[in-house]
Amino acid sequence: MRPEPKSFRYEERDDGVAVITLDRPEKLNALTFEVYAELRDLFAALAHREPVRAVVITGSGRAFCSGGDVHDIIGELFSRDMPGLIEFTRMTCDLVRNIRRLRKPVVAALNGTTAGAGAAIALACDLRVAAAGSKIAFLFVKVGLAGADMGAAHLLPRYVGLAKATELLMLGDAIPAEEAKAIGLHNEVVPADEVLPRALQLAGRLAAGPTFALGVTKELLDEEQHASLHSSLDNEARAQAICMQTRDFREAYDAFVEKRPARFTGR
Amino acid sequence: MRPEPKSFRYEERDDGVAVITLDRPEKLNALTFEVYAELRDLFAALAHREPVRAVVITGSGRAFCSGGDVHDIIGELFSRDMPGLIEFTRMTCDLVRNIRRLRKPVVAALNGTTAGAGAAIALACDLRVAAAGSKIAFLFVKVGLAGADMGAAHLLPRYVGLAKATELLMLGDAIPAEEAKAIGLHNEVVPADEVLPRALQLAGRLAAGPTFALGVTKELLDEEQHASLHSSLDNEARAQAICMQTRDFREAYDAFVEKRPARFTGR
Amino acid sequence: MRPEPKSFRYEERDDGVAVITLDRPEKLNALTFEVYAELRDLFAALAHREPVRAVVITGSGRAFCSGGDVHDIIGELFSRDMPGLIEFTRMTCDLVRNIRRLRKPVVAALNGTTAGAGAAIALACDLRVAAAGSKIAFLFVKVGLAGADMGAAHLLPRYVGLAKATELLMLGDAIPAEEAKAIGLHNEVVPADEVLPRALQLAGRLAAGPTFALGVTKELLDEEQHASLHSSLDNEARAQAICMQTRDFREAYDAFVEKRPARFTGR
Repeated sequence: MRPEPKSFRYEERDDGVAVITLDRPEKLNALTFEVYAELRDLFAALAHREPVRAVVITGSGRAFCSGGDVHDIIGELFSRDMPGLIEFTRMTCDLVRNIRRLRKPVVAALNGTTAGAGAAIALACDLRVAAAGSKIAFLFVKVGLAGADMGAAHLLPRYVGLAKATELLMLGDAIPAEEAKAIGLHNEVVPADEVLPRALQLAGRLAAGPTFALGVTKELLDEEQHASLHSSLDNEARAQAICMQTRDFREAYDAFVEKRPARFTGR
Repeated sequence: MRPEPKSFRYEERDDGVAVITLDRPEKLNALTFEVYAELRDLFAALAHREPVRAVVITGSGRAFCSGGDVHDIIGELFSRDMPGLIEFTRMTCDLVRNIRRLRKPVVAALNGTTAGAGAAIALACDLRVAAAGSKIAFLFVKVGLAGADMGAAHLLPRYVGLAKATELLMLGDAIPAEEAKAIGLHNEVVPADEVLPRALQLAGRLAAGPTFALGVTKELLDEEQHASLHSSLDNEARAQAICMQTRDFREAYDAFVEKRPARFTGR
Repeated sequence: MRPEPKSFRYEERDDGVAVITLDRPEKLNALTFEVYAELRDLFAALAHREPVRAVVITGSGRAFCSGGDVHDIIGELFSRDMPGLIEFTRMTCDLVRNIRRLRKPVVAALNGTTAGAGAAIALACDLRVAAAGSKIAFLFVKVGLAGADMGAAHLLPRYVGLAKATELLMLGDAIPAEEAKAIGLHNEVVPADEVLPRALQLAGRLAAGPTFALGVTKELLDEEQHASLHSSLDNEARAQAICMQTRDFREAYDAFVEKRPARFTGR
């Protein structure tokens, strides 16, 4: 069944790409409890949504996402007891978990300001295309919280190295997209009006790829971050043998022999 | 009680920054057994020293630290049996352990030559500001030892990647501060006479931050280097909920509402 | 006993460097089942080959290695059942395992095109010297397979960071050697005719180093990729104490005192 979230826009394209658009532009797409919950559930549901083979997430207006809404979320948290606080932080972490567990590529189209929880969502995506001149900030420390939020202390050092990650998480300063690319965080920086088209192009190409094998790639990239080289090699030997029994592996070989482009079905 | 080390200088500033100055300039601040032991004990003691909320470590003269003293330490080691050798290597590793375990930011002000154990101490710090034109060398291999010294084989690849770390640890060559910044090791490179002022400025800013939450950030950055994404997310959900019960989280919100700067107490 | 592989060239030089040359230039040094098996066995055997203290691997002609041969290997795999497929993938992973387990430095001299399994072999080496203008591609996805092949999902993110590794493994595009160096994958890029001489020079220097301590460095670099900082420090304290009982440690000290170059025997 086609997902129908209420708190942001959701579209499915003919090329197998689903597009999520955060849509509270007057609030710089600040997240509410409802947006968090619906995003979490959507990324879980997309695992079983066969026509969707890649995802793009972007924002409307001049921001991608400015993080948790100060009044709706932060203000509300002071009335909560510990189980109530944990309920919230687990929800935010489950959003990241579901993005990473989705065995389909997710491309972030960072059309503008990307801050706090918005930056953490960007980290969770597989690829990041950002607008020239836009900024990204892991500003948790500035609201008195730990930089270790929504997986940032796990993921950020693996993108930019431990020295730069420590600096970004401890100081909370915004950096321009160009610097974020130079340090290994963003994959591409393009003019603002090309961000979404470029993200759709990349996602379209990935959606036409061997989806099963791409899912294995994504799963093992995460798994092997904390595994030994030796168990990783055992994992990869088993995983690749499984991929060798897919129709897409046969298709690539037939296409090569017949000197034509491969048509992957994702299975 | 205020620590009173004998083998190097120690100062506590009004802004919450403690300054450690290695002070054997005629020996390029080479480490002796006594310096090692006192540094190890000082970093352990600073955990419980409330007025101190950030630390700077630097050297007097033209070197930061040239490593273990060839005569005082290396010469002495040949007379030791295996338990005696392990006693020494454990002491050096415990120094690194105590720097990392201190839940307060530590900034290295690398005023000049940084070599061997000095380079390992620099690695253990949270941020590194280095003098333009100064050099850093992981020269263990040149004295016939493993590059895996004082945590270097753990930390260096996480700063500069495995290819460059292998090269630096296997060849032992010195690289200029500018290259160390380009590969992700140093955070900033400034003229020599600005190294200490800039490190003090960064440390002062961190000392005025939400110390409890900064400590959680530091603790989880290390913990999540070897944890799965999924256990990291669970860790962060719990840790952030705890931070939401600090006074500093409330203070940041109140300051935001009242449109004034936050005054963090660190609790 | 001196190894005598049949499917590629093998040479032992007087300076302690063994040189492996993939030698099917008309096929861009594509790997066959026999080449895989002999490489795997050779790297295992080199552990016990005392005169060899470092290794260079290169290709003849204009390619380093274009990966598994499409006809000889991929075509053949379609007739295999699952145990037969796993037998193949385990062989390829055991090659990588044996390169990494060899406690002697291995330098890749990437004289030209480096693709698929060839790129995975390059990743497994300790240092990479590549020809200006040559390309490297992790093109597994283009043949319908997972990018997680022969350890690539473990090793590549540790060289270039998770964002770039995801991009390279999911898109499968070739990148020039110059970009591979900029992102931290290659150690050096030199003109094509200087690749082998430079790799031999580096390997020669490493072969003249403290081989036992270099082996410990290599072993711990891998081990600590998935270990906690704290167990890594314990490992290093023990490992370095062992290195302090080698003759090479004493030799370095004697040479320093006598103001002459050290002559390491590797023990």
